[in-house]
Amino acid sequence: MPKTNLIPPPESGPVYLRLAGVLEGMIRNQSLRPGDRVPSVRQFGRQQKVSVPTALNAYAALETRGLIEARPKSGYFVRRRQADAVRMPGWGRPAPRITDFSSLDPLDTLMSDHGDPAFVPLGAALPSPELLPGEKLARIMGAIARRIPGAGVSYDVMPGSEILRRELARRSLDWGCALQPDEFMVTNGCTEALALALRATCQPGDTVVVESPTYFGLSSVLRESRLKALPIPVDSETGIDLEMLATALRKTRVAACLLIPNFHNPTGFLMPEDRKKALMDLVGPRGIPIIEDDTYGDLQHQGTRPRCLKAFDRNGSVILCGSFSKTLAPGYRIGYISGGRWHAQLMRLKQISSLANATLPTLAVAEFLKHGGYDRHLRSLRQAYRSQMEHMREAVAASFPPGIGLSRPQGNLVLWCELPARVDSIELFQRARAAGISVAPGPLFAPDGGCRNFIRLNCGHPWSPLIERSVAVLGHLATELANKG
Amino acid sequence: MPKTNLIPPPESGPVYLRLAGVLEGMIRNQSLRPGDRVPSVRQFGRQQKVSVPTALNAYAALETRGLIEARPKSGYFVRRRQADAVRMPGWGRPAPRITDFSSLDPLDTLMSDHGDPAFVPLGAALPSPELLPGEKLARIMGAIARRIPGAGVSYDVMPGSEILRRELARRSLDWGCALQPDEFMVTNGCTEALALALRATCQPGDTVVVESPTYFGLSSVLRESRLKALPIPVDSETGIDLEMLATALRKTRVAACLLIPNFHNPTGFLMPEDRKKALMDLVGPRGIPIIEDDTYGDLQHQGTRPRCLKAFDRNGSVILCGSFSKTLAPGYRIGYISGGRWHAQLMRLKQISSLANATLPTLAVAEFLKHGGYDRHLRSLRQAYRSQMEHMREAVAASFPPGIGLSRPQGNLVLWCELPARVDSIELFQRARAAGISVAPGPLFAPDGGCRNFIRLNCGHPWSPLIERSVAVLGHLATELANKG
Repeated sequence: MPKTNLIPPPESGPVYLRLAGVLEGMIRNQSLRPGDRVPSVRQFGRQQKVSVPTALNAYAALETRGLIEARPKSGYFVRRRQADAVRMPGWGRPAPRITDFSSLDPLDTLMSDHGDPAFVPLGAALPSPELLPGEKLARIMGAIARRIPGAGVSYDVMPGSEILRRELARRSLDWGCALQPDEFMVTNGCTEALALALRATCQPGDTVVVESPTYFGLSSVLRESRLKALPIPVDSETGIDLEMLATALRKTRVAACLLIPNFHNPTGFLMPEDRKKALMDLVGPRGIPIIEDDTYGDLQHQGTRPRCLKAFDRNGSVILCGSFSKTLAPGYRIGYISGGRWHAQLMRLKQISSLANATLPTLAVAEFLKHGGYDRHLRSLRQAYRSQMEHMREAVAASFPPGIGLSRPQGNLVLWCELPARVDSIELFQRARAAGISVAPGPLFAPDGGCRNFIRLNCGHPWSPLIERSVAVLGHLATELANKG
Repeated sequence: MPKTNLIPPPESGPVYLRLAGVLEGMIRNQSLRPGDRVPSVRQFGRQQKVSVPTALNAYAALETRGLIEARPKSGYFVRRRQADAVRMPGWGRPAPRITDFSSLDPLDTLMSDHGDPAFVPLGAALPSPELLPGEKLARIMGAIARRIPGAGVSYDVMPGSEILRRELARRSLDWGCALQPDEFMVTNGCTEALALALRATCQPGDTVVVESPTYFGLSSVLRESRLKALPIPVDSETGIDLEMLATALRKTRVAACLLIPNFHNPTGFLMPEDRKKALMDLVGPRGIPIIEDDTYGDLQHQGTRPRCLKAFDRNGSVILCGSFSKTLAPGYRIGYISGGRWHAQLMRLKQISSLANATLPTLAVAEFLKHGGYDRHLRSLRQAYRSQMEHMREAVAASFPPGIGLSRPQGNLVLWCELPARVDSIELFQRARAAGISVAPGPLFAPDGGCRNFIRLNCGHPWSPLIERSVAVLGHLATELANKG
């Protein structure tokens, strides 16, 4: 189980955490505002009919969460949240233009720095292993190996474990779809799913609509597949510009659209349902395949899981790709694809690309979904990501130079940060690396070469003094660069 | 440990097995010929200074191995081996021609039938799980998960586990190479390695030299990659026709050569070293990349491990691909590639194809190679494959129609069988399937559409009455088809 301080939903958990949840709700719905005094511990205990130590525990939990603060001799107050005063990041609104990726440098350092304990892991969008059910998954894997002789060494033949595909089908109801087990194929993470989808729908030289900024893995796969990108601007506040997309589709022959509608990486934008419908109405009738990266769909910070674009797909135009790399175990490499019209072709391509997934990791994830309490795990993981992100937002607001923009993601584990115009994030990336801090510089996400003054911060790790200090160092370095010249 | 009856090498194991090894040696070197009487049990016990029960155990082991037989009231005799009288399979020697794969049906049934207990598994080239160290690997995996917190859930970032790459480097000395750990990358089985190698070296529409017959996975990857095959004939007795290859290279612009020099699948041919050198002298100077599939290199039935083509590579022209799918665990999906001049590009392609391998399976195989007795395991596995193949050869010789040809592989786990010319192996495949037996029909292996009257038989399972009966059924079906019309 995660070792971070989480506040579970009010209906479950120890009494003091339930009480903390009550106060948290009041702070969130603005019944208690930043700077307001909260009831004294004694008073709160009386109101809620609990002992003083229990009330004190509830306050300690809220303090750890950064929601309240103790002022010496004055009591507890709702903490002023500087981050809420910070505007959202903008975009440069460049005109869409076709970009050839062949000149972009790959920044493999991000991935390798993440695994290196010498670096504070704010770069790659990866959860801390302590938030993930690694021990439980390994135990399940061991139990399967003992229970089914030969299970581990034998192939899990295509399209992959039926148990897992049944669970995915069941869960697809939450996504607004009603997919059947045989509409899924198990893949080596979402990476393989996306690569297969592009191979199935595009020929080298073709043009693919992507968001800008977008996940840098998408730029890499386009570059290595000799595809061209047609980037459409997206920002943290309003998402993808559908008018610009409509114009682009009229002007250019597009082979596919590659989009992240739910908790977009890096901006965190959640496309509202009416926009999803409008997008499908725009693209669907043209017969252009939409490759939907739903890696972050399960990671809403509050409320219900958002529906997928696939939910609004009437003619099998959407190739839905997802994975358990941000929720269960990046190292298990379990992703999936539901390929609509292209599903048979995707199966042939998987056969020649990797033949099959590793059997035991696949079966372990299947079993965890079926019996392991995936939903319970998701609830605490979402709370962790939300809490860590709020800490990060506060810390950035406190130490970064004036004039920054900061995303307010409703899900996912990354924060998108616009720095003052003169800050070169590649230089910031290099200076931070020299200081032992890994961050992801903006140009990595910009298929059109922009985002020079942006960085993305990973909030996948429990908040700690080390991370707090590192954000202060980043703020110092950014201020230096802003004042340079 | 394998549950089959193995005769370990004379220097190890219980006394009776060592004695059986002595007699086996005499039979193999023809000191005792088929039909010869062997010493009586009592006599042999006296000669070797062991008790009668020990000598009897040795004889029982030889009997189980099919090397001797008891004749009532006459004693023991060296068994007549019908298979030795059967000629090697031929080839049709068609002129090399470029083949477009787009019309070939994929026979996915082979793979799925293999996992289905309803079928006797003579189709896919796969070992029986009971011959593989599945329990041990699973225990190692569990131990790693307990020992290194977070190991399983975290990425094993590219180029993959250094422990595994060090072991590969160490073992490469046996292959006649001296590769460094950083010249290796871990892949999802040999399948991913081969697919990446083709992507790195070829463009859609390019022509690739392949052997004919060849492993059907190579035909699939060429077809799906929109590459053309230039098939060069290979047979069980003389291997690839180098003169024909030389002529073809003079006439045609070839983007790559895709070859299986060690224990070729399906013919079992081991390319001698002088031929390997000649091949490198022919192809190397032209700058054409050679993709070497060394999946079966560790599976010699006797003597030392053959060297790779890569051992004769002077300018980084050979992309060496291999895996542990035929030796340790198909379901772990652990392969590797050493990409010569193309290594950096292969790393970029792996990054977009699957990002990383599943961590725990990779680390478990690494640990097994380092401390788990891989070489000991290989010794008993090779003996098992050899013994199973000899049983298969005998059974085929006994029950198949006259005029067949049968390969005499010096390694690998598959037997290549030429049937009478009028037997259509696709029809045999279908009738066998109806009888609950999976076999691999010849045309699957023929990029040029030949091998209509060939089948490949998997010898990866311990010999059993069920398999023996199934081979008799196959023989009956083949005889029916031979006499049809």
